[in-house]
Amino acid sequence: MRMYDIILKKRNGEELTKEEIQFFINGYTEGTIPDYQASALLMAIYFKGMSKSETAELTMAMVNSGETVDLSAIKGVKVDKHSTGGVGDKISLIVIPLVASLGIPVAKMSGRGLGHTGGTIDKLESIPGFRTELTGDEFIDNVNNYKMAISGQSGNLVPADKKLYALRDVTATIDSIPLIASSIMSKKIASGADCIVLDVKVGSGAFMKSVEEAYVLAETMVEIGKSLNRKTIAVVTDMSQPLGHEVGNSNEIIEAIEVLKGKGSKDETQVALTIASYMAVLGGAFEDFEKAHIALEEVIRSGKAIDKLKLLIQIQGGNPDVVDKIEILPQAKYHIEVRSKKDGYVNSIDAESIGISAMLLGAGRRTKEDRIDFSAGISMKKKVGDKSNPGDILCVLHTNLQNTGEAERIALAAYNIGNSRVKVNKYIYGIIQ
Amino acid sequence: MRMYDIILKKRNGEELTKEEIQFFINGYTEGTIPDYQASALLMAIYFKGMSKSETAELTMAMVNSGETVDLSAIKGVKVDKHSTGGVGDKISLIVIPLVASLGIPVAKMSGRGLGHTGGTIDKLESIPGFRTELTGDEFIDNVNNYKMAISGQSGNLVPADKKLYALRDVTATIDSIPLIASSIMSKKIASGADCIVLDVKVGSGAFMKSVEEAYVLAETMVEIGKSLNRKTIAVVTDMSQPLGHEVGNSNEIIEAIEVLKGKGSKDETQVALTIASYMAVLGGAFEDFEKAHIALEEVIRSGKAIDKLKLLIQIQGGNPDVVDKIEILPQAKYHIEVRSKKDGYVNSIDAESIGISAMLLGAGRRTKEDRIDFSAGISMKKKVGDKSNPGDILCVLHTNLQNTGEAERIALAAYNIGNSRVKVNKYIYGIIQ
Repeated sequence: MRMYDIILKKRNGEELTKEEIQFFINGYTEGTIPDYQASALLMAIYFKGMSKSETAELTMAMVNSGETVDLSAIKGVKVDKHSTGGVGDKISLIVIPLVASLGIPVAKMSGRGLGHTGGTIDKLESIPGFRTELTGDEFIDNVNNYKMAISGQSGNLVPADKKLYALRDVTATIDSIPLIASSIMSKKIASGADCIVLDVKVGSGAFMKSVEEAYVLAETMVEIGKSLNRKTIAVVTDMSQPLGHEVGNSNEIIEAIEVLKGKGSKDETQVALTIASYMAVLGGAFEDFEKAHIALEEVIRSGKAIDKLKLLIQIQGGNPDVVDKIEILPQAKYHIEVRSKKDGYVNSIDAESIGISAMLLGAGRRTKEDRIDFSAGISMKKKVGDKSNPGDILCVLHTNLQNTGEAERIALAAYNIGNSRVKVNKYIYGIIQ
Repeated sequence: MRMYDIILKKRNGEELTKEEIQFFINGYTEGTIPDYQASALLMAIYFKGMSKSETAELTMAMVNSGETVDLSAIKGVKVDKHSTGGVGDKISLIVIPLVASLGIPVAKMSGRGLGHTGGTIDKLESIPGFRTELTGDEFIDNVNNYKMAISGQSGNLVPADKKLYALRDVTATIDSIPLIASSIMSKKIASGADCIVLDVKVGSGAFMKSVEEAYVLAETMVEIGKSLNRKTIAVVTDMSQPLGHEVGNSNEIIEAIEVLKGKGSKDETQVALTIASYMAVLGGAFEDFEKAHIALEEVIRSGKAIDKLKLLIQIQGGNPDVVDKIEILPQAKYHIEVRSKKDGYVNSIDAESIGISAMLLGAGRRTKEDRIDFSAGISMKKKVGDKSNPGDILCVLHTNLQNTGEAERIALAAYNIGNSRVKVNKYIYGIIQ
């Protein structure tokens, strides 16, 4: 078998065989296939796509390129969730204790963020003492004993994806649906989950800008999951403005606490309950979505959910008092109010710009080596549909940096204020299963 | 400027600017742009194409990547010709003395062959003593004194093309019209010609398999030539079967001698006279094609043409007696007759298969390091339209190798013999100017 023939075949729009896909992934991972042939194939895939079975084979070949996590020592059906990423996306922080409080095992592997704000792992590290690097035994014991654990991903999972992603990043081949879908799903499958709930974000702060694209990605991932015998559901959710009111790290922990106490914003709560309900259904604890949803609302109301978060923090070495004393979390030195200059209504908020502003304040990483300032972030005081009078505070920037001119300008420009009132009621676009 | 943005722009189907194309070619030639980004761009160009002006800019950027030949010391308009390559294509051997015998300077730079048989340079080296590596001064003096010279290409012409071609060869991005056109034209322009006649071959033994593709390539190259102020004409010629009767190296020299003596086959003679006529017209010696054609027929009839070939051989150090004593050329030890098994007419001859068979006999190179056996080759005894009785000799294989089973099988299978008689009358499909 020759890599040349594989490139030619895909370039001509033909379907690759399982053996050809394995030859490519194995050879590329081992270094016998050079970058320049891999990038030519990736560009051909960008133009010619991949069939459902090709995408599933690519996913499995990537899974098999490295170690996989064996969760068989955990009793019950293990449920995982994954978000395609957004601004102010703190859903994982909420759903882990929420679903676990129903007795369903949540074994969550998570990555660090390379983007506007930290990832779930980074956000949790803003809690003093919280350990995100568990040993395999600790992880399994915690899930067995407490129904929940979260840990950073092992360095040896899906090496093919690490190498391919780095290549795609410099060859303009990131935004290909089969490549995105196989990258995400290979990591979830290698992490050992039985069931996967996918939160596919769509809008200005998401990778998918249109609902149509988001549906195609969601369908592709659900197909992969099914063909590899993982129960998979995708929820397409709104990211046309930041989710909730907090964007950052420690301030997102605070907002997650509020949702678990039943005091969260409508959008944040609705998206979290939807994702958690499907996790509960896939985990086999409920027959249908409505029953799961009612049970989840009840664990919030009864205080079981917030107690479960306390327990999660405690068993992973963090200070559980944070749940009631948020001042334990890192505090920024400066709080800069960004005020409206216009009379009208907030018509839209460019979520990506808010993310970039947050990153400039110190909340995210530009390179792997950057350190995150957990206290940095943005509190959204106005959201789409809100009245804006000149001088009203639109958002507050939290930072330890002194030079914040650019972050302020970008945050202000993210707000589009018009005369007519736009209402946002739709936080969930659809479900693919 | 970033290579990433250039890849993205082309991937999205946008037109690259002159500066972007120069950035790519310069960076790639210098090694600051890695192979993996270049191959991603090449694949994007394969899918999205290039506009006329992009292709011309790419050509000029490639020309400027290295040295160019200064032929200004040669008096008169310098005419060059180029063939896109075929099996049994010995036209250059014929047209150099033919056009020169009209007093038009022919300054021919030529490459070595990497394919079924040698290139023009290799074929000439089968003449004992023939020197194909002339110094710049020798080359210019010979053209000034004798109106003709042929030399191997300098190592420093168009380094960008050498590097890009090697990359295209392993990434399935060879067959892209703008990339083929700019590769050919950059070498012709860097070689210093004022006028270029292109022989675009079409058919089973050519790179372009359909007449439509051949026309697009021809038009693209003529456009490049015009936009860079080189008078350029393309002739689309037939390569649906090998040209003439000889395929190889020394046996192609013999056939070229026959054509120059007025005893060549109809197809070989017609294509050679057509190319030579347009060279004479572009060189400014004749007003129109017909007058040039008549004059060329006359130099053959009068013996001036074959005398000019003798002179070419002599001034480049070869033994001119070869023109009358072909036994001076290397002779193969074995001559294997491939005989027909069928009754009928030759309906087609797969020219590429004949080329592969010739290569297996020793006539060509598989890698740059391979040595050519000048005596190896194939004599086509039957061509399309000929009657074939069982036992008739279809072709004769010349070789010094003992194990020729595969070459015989391939040569026999190249002949498609059917019941109805197919006539081939068309050797020239069209002219683009």
